Amino acid sequence: MAIEGVDPRRIGRELEGAAVTVDPGLPAPVRAGVEELVRRPLGPGTGPRVHVGPALPELGPGERLLWMHSTNAGVDALLAASAGWPPGTLLTRTVGRMGERIGQYVLAWVLAELQQIPAFLEQQTSRTWNRLPTELADGTLAVVLGTGGIGAGIAAALRPCGVRTVGAARTARPVPGFDEVVALGAPDGSCAPDGSGAPSAELVAALGAARWVVGALPLTPATEGLLGSGFFGAPAGATFLNVGRGATVRTEALGRALEEGRVAHAVLDVLPEEPAGPGAPAWELPRTTLTAHSAGPTTAADVLADFRAAWLALGAGRLPGLAVRAARGY
Amino acid sequence: MAIEGVDPRRIGRELEGAAVTVDPGLPAPVRAGVEELVRRPLGPGTGPRVHVGPALPELGPGERLLWMHSTNAGVDALLAASAGWPPGTLLTRTVGRMGERIGQYVLAWVLAELQQIPAFLEQQTSRTWNRLPTELADGTLAVVLGTGGIGAGIAAALRPCGVRTVGAARTARPVPGFDEVVALGAPDGSCAPDGSGAPSAELVAALGAARWVVGALPLTPATEGLLGSGFFGAPAGATFLNVGRGATVRTEALGRALEEGRVAHAVLDVLPEEPAGPGAPAWELPRTTLTAHSAGPTTAADVLADFRAAWLALGAGRLPGLAVRAARGY
Repeated sequence: MAIEGVDPRRIGRELEGAAVTVDPGLPAPVRAGVEELVRRPLGPGTGPRVHVGPALPELGPGERLLWMHSTNAGVDALLAASAGWPPGTLLTRTVGRMGERIGQYVLAWVLAELQQIPAFLEQQTSRTWNRLPTELADGTLAVVLGTGGIGAGIAAALRPCGVRTVGAARTARPVPGFDEVVALGAPDGSCAPDGSGAPSAELVAALGAARWVVGALPLTPATEGLLGSGFFGAPAGATFLNVGRGATVRTEALGRALEEGRVAHAVLDVLPEEPAGPGAPAWELPRTTLTAHSAGPTTAADVLADFRAAWLALGAGRLPGLAVRAARGY
Repeated sequence: MAIEGVDPRRIGRELEGAAVTVDPGLPAPVRAGVEELVRRPLGPGTGPRVHVGPALPELGPGERLLWMHSTNAGVDALLAASAGWPPGTLLTRTVGRMGERIGQYVLAWVLAELQQIPAFLEQQTSRTWNRLPTELADGTLAVVLGTGGIGAGIAAALRPCGVRTVGAARTARPVPGFDEVVALGAPDGSCAPDGSGAPSAELVAALGAARWVVGALPLTPATEGLLGSGFFGAPAGATFLNVGRGATVRTEALGRALEEGRVAHAVLDVLPEEPAGPGAPAWELPRTTLTAHSAGPTTAADVLADFRAAWLALGAGRLPGLAVRAARGY
């Protein structure tokens, strides 16, 4: 199957004569693994270019980029490059074990709140031994915004602890691993007063009952600034965790929800602008903890495994499972 | 089946004329639930006494204690009462959902370490946004000392995150929920130089490979001070969590293991002396967090459920599942 002018059979045929490069900032095992897989010395050459890295390579005069394998899962920055994504060029991405990793991150912060880990760490500093109430996760409700690989990993991590999971996706439909999936947006595509998205009636109801609301959305034109007064007006004391993209959230609207108690706590692994300097607005949010885009690290093994799968798929004339649809954004 | 001079059929017959009391410190729903179940006004009377509470009741002259239902899981303090446990008196205990609760406590602290939650909370106080490496729990090894209801709850909580579990019990044998169960002590019952227990060769090997070592032992004459230089000499950088009883651990030996790095971190929910005042020796342990006997709280629903099950079993002439063998200690 070809997508957006990218024909996997044509690319597969061109692989044989392609020059393969790996970003010099990547760890040595990635270079070694790629070199072993592609069976040629790495470096630019006369053929079309295959590149593995976090950013577009610099091409020599007359050089053509055939395929880029991104070492990240989020490709919004790549797609936002000045002239738009070059037509006919394949973009694949690294997901690796990111679903599992981000799932354990979310589970860790959920359990830390229920087990009062921050409060016990604080008691430790003052040698205070006071019993604090702890809670089972059982029967609490998590709303997961986004039901792709990351959302599914979150649901899979929460479920064994008895957490019910409602996913929110473009359309309501059964998705394995979720107890239910509702539509993310109102059916008429209407907006909240601040121009952000309006959640569907089903999602408003779920957010109102949720103990946990997890943002796991990619950054696309449709999700940028989506989570504003419309979404944050619905919860009634939930903890909000964002592991998707920072720019899907309007920090001001989140701040108001925190002030009004509609959001009880926030844990943000991603921010609209990263890295966050000491003056970043998110530091001003009450009852909020920032983690530094650490939930879903990509290892050398992840990059190699996903590049290898894509290389083998193309060699067989198939479109890799992690091929990006530029128009969709992931 | 009768144990230690306690005949459940005799007790079942005596229940009809028994006076039932509930410790005045227990929450109102416990009193209400017990009263509804036993169908008589609560309070001392002319019949033999059934008591629900954390400690032995005061008996009037000539009054006889028929059955005590402890509102706690650990009954070491009750059994250690001055004159020994009164022969012929039934003791049952409340376990409730303690296995699940303590399982989630252990999982929470395990994931908090892998996700660097303490470090991120510290970064938050100084508005520092530095990426820190996080790890998947996958493939790490947990050794759980004790394979009863608590130990099994811990194994059940850790497993879905891909943690391998080796249990340690009085005898090596397959126990559902554990990947393997080895013998706790050396077969000849030998001791370490400080008089503490010597672990079996299989347990020494498992401790050496473990990332997590979890104490989940009841306090009995056989386990008091068991975990000393023998046990703490075996790990090679594990995190030790104690959710059993504090007096099973020799704090000095744990301190040496922490100083030498054989134990990398410790999380202690229980201590030899509770509550811990500011001068308690455990506060001096490096890289250690104390939580205040909070891992396995017992709720009113737990007490009622376990008392109800015991009441119904006795009514049918059966020994309750949570009947304590005084000689064994649990």
